[in-house]
Amino acid sequence: MSPFSGSAPRTEEWRHLRLTREDGVATVTLARPDKLNALTFGAYADLRDLLAELSRERSVRALVLAGEGRGFCSGGDVDEIIGATLSMDTAELLDFNRMTGQVVRAVRECPFPVIAAVHGVAAGAGAVLALAADFRVADPTARFAFLFTRVGLSGGDMGAAYLLPRVVGLGHATRLLMLGEPVRAPEAERIGLISELTDEGAADSRAAELARRLADGPALAYAQTKALLTAELDMPLAASVELDAATQALLMNGEDYAEFHAAFTEKRPPKWQGR
Amino acid sequence: MSPFSGSAPRTEEWRHLRLTREDGVATVTLARPDKLNALTFGAYADLRDLLAELSRERSVRALVLAGEGRGFCSGGDVDEIIGATLSMDTAELLDFNRMTGQVVRAVRECPFPVIAAVHGVAAGAGAVLALAADFRVADPTARFAFLFTRVGLSGGDMGAAYLLPRVVGLGHATRLLMLGEPVRAPEAERIGLISELTDEGAADSRAAELARRLADGPALAYAQTKALLTAELDMPLAASVELDAATQALLMNGEDYAEFHAAFTEKRPPKWQGR
Amino acid sequence: MSPFSGSAPRTEEWRHLRLTREDGVATVTLARPDKLNALTFGAYADLRDLLAELSRERSVRALVLAGEGRGFCSGGDVDEIIGATLSMDTAELLDFNRMTGQVVRAVRECPFPVIAAVHGVAAGAGAVLALAADFRVADPTARFAFLFTRVGLSGGDMGAAYLLPRVVGLGHATRLLMLGEPVRAPEAERIGLISELTDEGAADSRAAELARRLADGPALAYAQTKALLTAELDMPLAASVELDAATQALLMNGEDYAEFHAAFTEKRPPKWQGR
Repeated sequence: MSPFSGSAPRTEEWRHLRLTREDGVATVTLARPDKLNALTFGAYADLRDLLAELSRERSVRALVLAGEGRGFCSGGDVDEIIGATLSMDTAELLDFNRMTGQVVRAVRECPFPVIAAVHGVAAGAGAVLALAADFRVADPTARFAFLFTRVGLSGGDMGAAYLLPRVVGLGHATRLLMLGEPVRAPEAERIGLISELTDEGAADSRAAELARRLADGPALAYAQTKALLTAELDMPLAASVELDAATQALLMNGEDYAEFHAAFTEKRPPKWQGR
Repeated sequence: MSPFSGSAPRTEEWRHLRLTREDGVATVTLARPDKLNALTFGAYADLRDLLAELSRERSVRALVLAGEGRGFCSGGDVDEIIGATLSMDTAELLDFNRMTGQVVRAVRECPFPVIAAVHGVAAGAGAVLALAADFRVADPTARFAFLFTRVGLSGGDMGAAYLLPRVVGLGHATRLLMLGEPVRAPEAERIGLISELTDEGAADSRAAELARRLADGPALAYAQTKALLTAELDMPLAASVELDAATQALLMNGEDYAEFHAAFTEKRPPKWQGR
Repeated sequence: MSPFSGSAPRTEEWRHLRLTREDGVATVTLARPDKLNALTFGAYADLRDLLAELSRERSVRALVLAGEGRGFCSGGDVDEIIGATLSMDTAELLDFNRMTGQVVRAVRECPFPVIAAVHGVAAGAGAVLALAADFRVADPTARFAFLFTRVGLSGGDMGAAYLLPRVVGLGHATRLLMLGEPVRAPEAERIGLISELTDEGAADSRAAELARRLADGPALAYAQTKALLTAELDMPLAASVELDAATQALLMNGEDYAEFHAAFTEKRPPKWQGR
């Protein structure tokens, strides 16, 4: 538990997703398989709140986001979200869309790497959740579809118009966000949307292996790498170089850097502490 | 006609390009085939003014930019532009170069998608016009050449040093802008410079099909997707997410979003209004 | 010699690298082959100071950075850098990391193109030096490894978390910086990390050919192309277009632009002056 905890209690039960934890690895599973894990207001709210809790607790060093059943996530539920928003006033609509954006910011800004384990469909908000993750570990059944325009909305949803050009370039991003057509695994790999293409059915297990490796490794170094990648997309070169210098000076005072050198000198594997 | 029209008359005749319109689709053809559609001062000025007129009229929902004859556009005319600029003073040179940059800004900022239909050569300013478009629909004869350094100028012309790294990455962009070598269709597709590779001779017809689809679809959603892609290249993540939220709240009040839900519920295709 | 020279003397002997010059081309060789050209404090300092001297002298029009022996550069020396930094205080650590960042800024900001000639390993700081170059000319033995996390440090070192996403996209960059795994030549070419893949053993000679071509060509146009590519990564579209316009107006007053037109008219190759 972090010393920077206040009065806020931990959430005892997450009703809209499944959470398991094992020695520094949190696994969040979208578990509404009969609806292809379509997101509800509650699921967005739980993702937002869970990431905030995990970020302040500091007990998690890697997080896997997965989907149960036939696919990863089919996006916002047609009835429970699209239908419901049709009767909302402008302030409520803004609140809803800010909440979904907060989830994406939380994925990019939480102090641990996030690995999306993708099989089958990752559509709409599901595609953006995967896009916001640090790693997309996907099997050959994966298909991504940023289908917002297909429901009459902007392809720039939840930061997609910011993130996608920075992952696959402006040309591909324009095509994918404007047309909403599915991108299957081979194309997704070719354009840089997939981090690791696994055997069929192996996305969850490979994502778990990667999370284990990250959690057992120099976790503070990983967390800082993520923080710099996120921050420096929005920073000029000179400031980025200065941020890198301050970060490395900090980590050179840390235990893992000294441990690397000791292990190297003693010709043994390092025992990482993650600090 | 937009209610936001003032006293400025419409241009009745575009002398330096060919314009056709058909139910929301404008097709602009560079039509100087004996010169490989080399651009003149007049052609730049007409592109600048036409895009401004179309942007305020709001009757166009998609635009195709094509070239007549053997190629798309060979760039600035050696005699009519390079020769003429040699006798210009500094203020005139700045005016000329600002005009060409205004064309690129107009392509990126106009409230409808722009589709470049590319066959044969797209060189110099022709390559940048295609680069600024939202889609590059190209056939196997297409070749792009950012040949500015070959005439003693900077590869960063008309925003190319801004746009190209954001489309194909800094490494490829440096090579292409610095050396000015032609990029043929297979490489252009591989590095993300082509949106859709068509059969030989089919770039114009496929571009027309795409424009028709965009104009008949949820055109406001497409326009906003474009606007966010353009804007968020220059914005940080947090602000982008906020812009996305405001945009979606706006579109969720729109007719097309309600129409999608009604059509989905009634199991029929949506009738898009573009608003 | 530039007229903008002051009292500072030229360094007569670079003790930590090898420098040769030939008619506008400088070749800097990391020459510690028994240590795979591992960098020392002295090597960083010499790179920083050499690039500053060459930048103010204006006699160099292209620079090749190469490594002697079995590889390009294995990064910071485990004993002479990692070991030494373990006993440094915070101010010294910051000074060291600022120096390494200054080298990367100097590579990006010097007024001539930099070509990394890569064979064998380019690891850690060696990978970032290659990444900062304008061109990476590499042979099939090349392998890049951003292995900072493997020593307990941040993958964002020397601007890598700024540069790598802009070269290969955020997805690949996250994977490479977070995990520190080697990227071999075929993958490096596929993701855009290599500018030119040569035959085995030909990286140095091809880099020399490219440097010769750049130095003999319109060198001011090349230098400005580089400057705009570097600057416009950090600029919005409208400002980039304005910078391009000012730059082209400047170069249209230059000798090479007039020479191009004269040569074209006279049907002869241009004689570039680089101004």
